[in-house]
Amino acid sequence: MDGTLGTVFVSELVGTTFLLLLGCGVVANVALARTKGEAGGFLLVNFGWGLAVFAGVYAGYKSGAHLNPAVTLGLLANGVEEYGPDIPVTVGTTLVYIVAQLLGGILGATLCWLAYRQHFDATDDAGSQLAVFSTAPAIRHPVWNVVTEVIGTFVLVFVIIMFGNTPSEVGPLAVALLVVGIGASLGGPTGYAINPARDLGPRIAHALLPMRGKGPSDWGYAWVPVVGPVIGGVLAGLAAAAYA
Amino acid sequence: MDGTLGTVFVSELVGTTFLLLLGCGVVANVALARTKGEAGGFLLVNFGWGLAVFAGVYAGYKSGAHLNPAVTLGLLANGVEEYGPDIPVTVGTTLVYIVAQLLGGILGATLCWLAYRQHFDATDDAGSQLAVFSTAPAIRHPVWNVVTEVIGTFVLVFVIIMFGNTPSEVGPLAVALLVVGIGASLGGPTGYAINPARDLGPRIAHALLPMRGKGPSDWGYAWVPVVGPVIGGVLAGLAAAAYA
Amino acid sequence: MDGTLGTVFVSELVGTTFLLLLGCGVVANVALARTKGEAGGFLLVNFGWGLAVFAGVYAGYKSGAHLNPAVTLGLLANGVEEYGPDIPVTVGTTLVYIVAQLLGGILGATLCWLAYRQHFDATDDAGSQLAVFSTAPAIRHPVWNVVTEVIGTFVLVFVIIMFGNTPSEVGPLAVALLVVGIGASLGGPTGYAINPARDLGPRIAHALLPMRGKGPSDWGYAWVPVVGPVIGGVLAGLAAAAYA
Amino acid sequence: MDGTLGTVFVSELVGTTFLLLLGCGVVANVALARTKGEAGGFLLVNFGWGLAVFAGVYAGYKSGAHLNPAVTLGLLANGVEEYGPDIPVTVGTTLVYIVAQLLGGILGATLCWLAYRQHFDATDDAGSQLAVFSTAPAIRHPVWNVVTEVIGTFVLVFVIIMFGNTPSEVGPLAVALLVVGIGASLGGPTGYAINPARDLGPRIAHALLPMRGKGPSDWGYAWVPVVGPVIGGVLAGLAAAAYA
Repeated sequence: MDGTLGTVFVSELVGTTFLLLLGCGVVANVALARTKGEAGGFLLVNFGWGLAVFAGVYAGYKSGAHLNPAVTLGLLANGVEEYGPDIPVTVGTTLVYIVAQLLGGILGATLCWLAYRQHFDATDDAGSQLAVFSTAPAIRHPVWNVVTEVIGTFVLVFVIIMFGNTPSEVGPLAVALLVVGIGASLGGPTGYAINPARDLGPRIAHALLPMRGKGPSDWGYAWVPVVGPVIGGVLAGLAAAAYA
Repeated sequence: MDGTLGTVFVSELVGTTFLLLLGCGVVANVALARTKGEAGGFLLVNFGWGLAVFAGVYAGYKSGAHLNPAVTLGLLANGVEEYGPDIPVTVGTTLVYIVAQLLGGILGATLCWLAYRQHFDATDDAGSQLAVFSTAPAIRHPVWNVVTEVIGTFVLVFVIIMFGNTPSEVGPLAVALLVVGIGASLGGPTGYAINPARDLGPRIAHALLPMRGKGPSDWGYAWVPVVGPVIGGVLAGLAAAAYA
Repeated sequence: MDGTLGTVFVSELVGTTFLLLLGCGVVANVALARTKGEAGGFLLVNFGWGLAVFAGVYAGYKSGAHLNPAVTLGLLANGVEEYGPDIPVTVGTTLVYIVAQLLGGILGATLCWLAYRQHFDATDDAGSQLAVFSTAPAIRHPVWNVVTEVIGTFVLVFVIIMFGNTPSEVGPLAVALLVVGIGASLGGPTGYAINPARDLGPRIAHALLPMRGKGPSDWGYAWVPVVGPVIGGVLAGLAAAAYA
Repeated sequence: MDGTLGTVFVSELVGTTFLLLLGCGVVANVALARTKGEAGGFLLVNFGWGLAVFAGVYAGYKSGAHLNPAVTLGLLANGVEEYGPDIPVTVGTTLVYIVAQLLGGILGATLCWLAYRQHFDATDDAGSQLAVFSTAPAIRHPVWNVVTEVIGTFVLVFVIIMFGNTPSEVGPLAVALLVVGIGASLGGPTGYAINPARDLGPRIAHALLPMRGKGPSDWGYAWVPVVGPVIGGVLAGLAAAAYA
């Protein structure tokens, strides 16, 4: 592993760890028993996830902070010249981004589990426990659930690519607010995974970690928040290339 | 259609599509049955719409991102030299802006309907289904409903024109927050259309799209969120010209 | 009236009108009957008022957008060299600022009343009607109510004066967020007037405007949200001069 | 005391006073009886604390606005060259930072008590009174409560150190939003002290101040929100030094 690959790996790992620690954290706060934010509402969840992205982007600055395979693949499809500062677009860097993001997802969710250790054990509902880690559809239907994830991720990746075309000095706040908005507007049917690492990483963590009364990890749904976001991200990269 | 008209058309179409996808989306999340944001509150709706503008403005950057006939006509009344970067103010560009905005409204609402497909069918109340697409007054009274829309749109267009007079580097965030504020403060009586394309485009989509138990599209009210915003936008453009 | 006084008058009048239109508006949305934001919660009110300031500051840019006699008197006590761009600190300008702010308060509240005309008549509780215009204490006690207003206004004026010492390019957003914060944190006991024009102007409007079932304008309390903010603003100006 | 130590002392004292006045204030608004924000929800508390940091950072600009011993010790562990503009890293400055922060915590909480004087007396629940001043765990367990505070403070200090690596011009808004996010995501188990001065200072104030029906100050828990944040801050400083 040369220096660049190592930089990408560590930066994406660290950034995605912060993303999932804080992102899973706000769901834990709202969904688990006896927390201070119990039943805190959907807007609280939206701000929690948006600001999780905010922290993660600052933490993953060395690699351009993709933190999301759908972003990496969207940028690849878009034909960007670099993935980040001095980071070339190659098969190797692409794979390292994705592997690091997935590992960061596992690690971040595990840290969230540590922070809310007592509350997982105090929660009787296995569905609420799983909800902290991974998304679940409000109405289960593979095709329509994929459609929703495609649309949500398309918005995410397309608008991120557009950011460069309008002067503004708000930095990572822009993507944070974009994620607040996508969550508020398109999170209703599937809980807006819009990121394979955000869903699959924590689902692996859920399968591995101990908790009182733990239920299954719902592997039958696990492909939806991977396939939908990848399709959406790639379509957005292609569309943005044709548009911009 | 020369290059400029094409640019305006595509840019406004794309921007308004994002605006309505996310804007209708947050209402779908709050108003339809069995979503994760069901009954999420008015502030959630306000942030959803504000951040819908945020995304739409980035997406429609090539045309100055009016995304709203009341803005286009307000800038016309104001006597601006250009509608956007290298886009002249002519009868032709004005019409292309408005047509593209209306088509974007139809397209964005249709994408929202796709994202929430299952939830439209799960919703028994035809009024809630229509609410995702178009505004309806809390107390129906044509004159006062027009007054409220005039005032709300006046604030929108006047303050947008003022943005250029105070240094700030927050970019599209300013108009997003302005829309959050107008929604919070002036959205109570009519649901703050403040944009003819935002209301009429989705209403057309509602009339065309299939959904279980769909009711009428309330065409009797459809002129209010067109006439009110146009009056408000033009008055704001004139007032800002006299003031600034 | 020379050019400067006229500029100050119009700018403060316009800015304060926007402030009170939107500020009273969010309370109308939450407190009046049959609105879409009915019972929308305190955070909605806080964001509504903060973004009312946001719009008002852009609108009142020619005079530095004080929009508040406590700010004007606080800057006077602080010993600033100018009230705004090329606006000298004199007895005349000071008086024009304050008179324009008060008139803007009356005008903005009247526009709010127009926007919510039907809802004032639909509201049976006279206290809720008055709450749209003016503040009232949660627990009535002149001394402690004044103390709370002094503290809240001190924070407002002191931190506004501090803004110049830390680089940031967010412009009017800073004061908007400061007002969101003061409302969230110090609005509990008295509803955070923190601005004599914000309270007295609308109270005059309430006394003059017709509405079904209107009650008294509570003039016995009217001095508190004038005296408290003036004391707090002047103390903050003096403290900031000693500190900075 | 030479000029630098005096500057640090006053600046940190003032900044931390604003932080705790507004931070304790939002809890008072939500937790005490008969306030206007009673039961206002967790997101209101998160924004209140985040914007308390916002105001405090502007107020404490002369010393770099640490406002938190965990930040000071984290920067020390990180090996920064200066604590703030022209402020050297020495044993003396370190101690002055921490002492001033603790005193500011006492003073800010006392001002909050003044602002909410009537509401403390109107509140029958001694636990709610104490909650305004200091944090308490949702599920009491020293080890896991420390773990949660370590994780939350690690995020705070690590990301603050990262801020310098990504261009952005939002200034103190970044740390304010970071605190909103940490509160939303990691505040569920312990109420996110993430700052020894924020917890210990107000706890001392609670012990000293009179209020009707006051209960004990829960000194048995007081070490947790001191030890956890110090460990988390130091670990973050070391980790950031190894990473950046």
